[in-house]
Amino acid sequence: MPTAASPPVAELGRRVKQASRVLATASTAVKDAALAAAADRLLGETDAVLTANADDVARAAAAGVGATVVDRLRLSPGRLEAMAGGLRQVAALRDPVGEVVEGWTRPNGLRITKVRVPLGVVAIIYENRPNVTSDAFGLCLKSGNAAFLRGSSAALASNVAIAAALRGGVEKVGLPADALVLVEDTSHETAAEFMGLRDSIDCLIPRGGPSLIASVRQHARVPYVIDGDGNCHVYVDARADLDQALDIVVNAKTQRPSVCNAAESLVVHEDVAERFLPRVVAALDGVELVGDERSRALVGSIGAATEADFAREFLAMKMSVAVVGSLDEAIDHVNRYGSGHTEAICTTDLAAATRFSREVDAAAVIVNASTRFTDGEEFGFGAEIGISTQKLHARGPMGLRELTTLKYVVTGDGQIRG
Amino acid sequence: MPTAASPPVAELGRRVKQASRVLATASTAVKDAALAAAADRLLGETDAVLTANADDVARAAAAGVGATVVDRLRLSPGRLEAMAGGLRQVAALRDPVGEVVEGWTRPNGLRITKVRVPLGVVAIIYENRPNVTSDAFGLCLKSGNAAFLRGSSAALASNVAIAAALRGGVEKVGLPADALVLVEDTSHETAAEFMGLRDSIDCLIPRGGPSLIASVRQHARVPYVIDGDGNCHVYVDARADLDQALDIVVNAKTQRPSVCNAAESLVVHEDVAERFLPRVVAALDGVELVGDERSRALVGSIGAATEADFAREFLAMKMSVAVVGSLDEAIDHVNRYGSGHTEAICTTDLAAATRFSREVDAAAVIVNASTRFTDGEEFGFGAEIGISTQKLHARGPMGLRELTTLKYVVTGDGQIRG
Repeated sequence: MPTAASPPVAELGRRVKQASRVLATASTAVKDAALAAAADRLLGETDAVLTANADDVARAAAAGVGATVVDRLRLSPGRLEAMAGGLRQVAALRDPVGEVVEGWTRPNGLRITKVRVPLGVVAIIYENRPNVTSDAFGLCLKSGNAAFLRGSSAALASNVAIAAALRGGVEKVGLPADALVLVEDTSHETAAEFMGLRDSIDCLIPRGGPSLIASVRQHARVPYVIDGDGNCHVYVDARADLDQALDIVVNAKTQRPSVCNAAESLVVHEDVAERFLPRVVAALDGVELVGDERSRALVGSIGAATEADFAREFLAMKMSVAVVGSLDEAIDHVNRYGSGHTEAICTTDLAAATRFSREVDAAAVIVNASTRFTDGEEFGFGAEIGISTQKLHARGPMGLRELTTLKYVVTGDGQIRG
Repeated sequence: MPTAASPPVAELGRRVKQASRVLATASTAVKDAALAAAADRLLGETDAVLTANADDVARAAAAGVGATVVDRLRLSPGRLEAMAGGLRQVAALRDPVGEVVEGWTRPNGLRITKVRVPLGVVAIIYENRPNVTSDAFGLCLKSGNAAFLRGSSAALASNVAIAAALRGGVEKVGLPADALVLVEDTSHETAAEFMGLRDSIDCLIPRGGPSLIASVRQHARVPYVIDGDGNCHVYVDARADLDQALDIVVNAKTQRPSVCNAAESLVVHEDVAERFLPRVVAALDGVELVGDERSRALVGSIGAATEADFAREFLAMKMSVAVVGSLDEAIDHVNRYGSGHTEAICTTDLAAATRFSREVDAAAVIVNASTRFTDGEEFGFGAEIGISTQKLHARGPMGLRELTTLKYVVTGDGQIRG
């Protein structure tokens, strides 16, 4: 546990900022070579990483943490292969840096271009999954950013071993090893200090549960993007194709209930509730359903929902159910309880689809498909660093492009203002 | 002074949020009609507004504030005409809402579009200029946002009168008057409360000096965009056209020294310093110059600069001067002391222009033109709500587009994830 000698977090911030200036102008070829070298080095140090990981797992088991947490923590040769594969996959993606997003010429002859450039230092605070160390590093490097990482104390030994391997790869191609800086002091005190390093951090992205998000909202003094809750709804409209709606609800709820784009709430129009609810309840076998009075009057097995249930992201085989009298009521319900992540409508009615798409306030509105598609891979971004539920900077799945900012480059031949 | 009966700020937040939902889907035609009606009403109430303004001015004068502050506060029939004209000008701009920024189809047939939508509620905290009440309202309304405004106590009577007129115009076309909500309680306590209204405010834009910005950084719990300092440099390269450079430096420094895109610092390559510095010092007649030892050795009239002088936004007829030995040194100087606003290079050397553009970290880099061009009007945006010096969401001049966010609309025909 190499914490005793680790430098203060402000000093680490200066180092990673320094490295970011080099990365910002590194060529795509060099960055891709660094990713390949990092992948090779990671696999080359499989034994060291797995030994460190075994320590973390043993500590966690001794501390009596749950099986799910231990599973998230545990690495295997296969998981390391997947991490290395992820780095190679990111290397194959298109480099967003240098893209001219738009450009025009002003009447006075000034030529204006808007160019995509790296953010600088991207900080990630994350929980127990050690693969985030590698995944976040890869996306940051490809987009020309230095990665400033702070994982959990439970995964510290694993993260230190992974970071050492990745840094070795980066150095091999002549880029600064500080392209990845891991904070090894995982105390609560340094978390607040970390989130306050305005001179070093250009963007902070927390990857974790509600308590981490709340802490960022409270303590962060650096710009951040929230990868927040998904209290996602599926609304089954009066004119839905009910067979299709059935498949969509079951998929959205049960295909992977623990993730943010899983559905947590079913809203059904009263015109189809009597036909649809009994079928969907039967199909949602194993899902605990809690609903409003109207839904419970139609299906006795639905339990009573509290107000809080409608607002809750269960992340489990549980779902809230509401029956509404109109599209307006459905939109109001979704805007009231939703978390701005993903909201779906099942309908064959063009006007209903259009209104739901316009009036629902969320990062993604999905018509006639599962909420589970809100995802960087599914959108075609190749990889994602998270899914933003905020409105500033990035909204929805964040790929490489969302790790960049824009710079105006204005070229003249002596223009002055009159 | 209508403060006694004004509702609590949280209640105002609920109202403006409610109104924002209506504005978000209002048609361009209706929004434009509202802007025209607001402009008419503002002119129709010229007497009431000027009477209120006279109260503010008298209070300020009695309190002994400076002439500049009183001038910022004072309205006239001409200034009201300009405010109304500004609203009509914004009505004539293209509505950013509904623009499909991009779209594509996935292999599974899902059609993905990325659509520009309003932020929701845009909050502005500003200082003494009452015209901001009207200008900010106009930009917010055109972009489908409700405006939640908090001006200074010095301008309160003026702002209340202006807001009443504008709200009257909005109501006349059937939109909610709460499209503009002015906070009339201007106490320090409610400022922090205002900046913490996460449920109501989608984006906060402070318009004011360093102490306001510092307060936002400290107290805001809502997302914000900083319209920050401009410590702008002009770098005169070894291969500059010195006649052109002279005009650019003089224009950037003196054409309007009180604004953020005015130059504050001159950096000159040693190869041309001996020829250029005496000329530019003569041309900058009336500007107090403070410089490093190398510049002072060449021109005796340059005073000694402290480290702090190089980092300072003077906003006055004062400028710092440094002589550098290389382009690298120039870029380091600019990145060290600059505030990320606008940095200019004067050079005929393509490689120098390219490196400066790439390696300088600022919202705008200008080659062979005055720093004064970083401006919404000059960029062709028609109007601006400010100039962002941050990297997230918006960077550089912010027009109507920067008051929007994006939403993914995904359309399928029953797709589920396997």
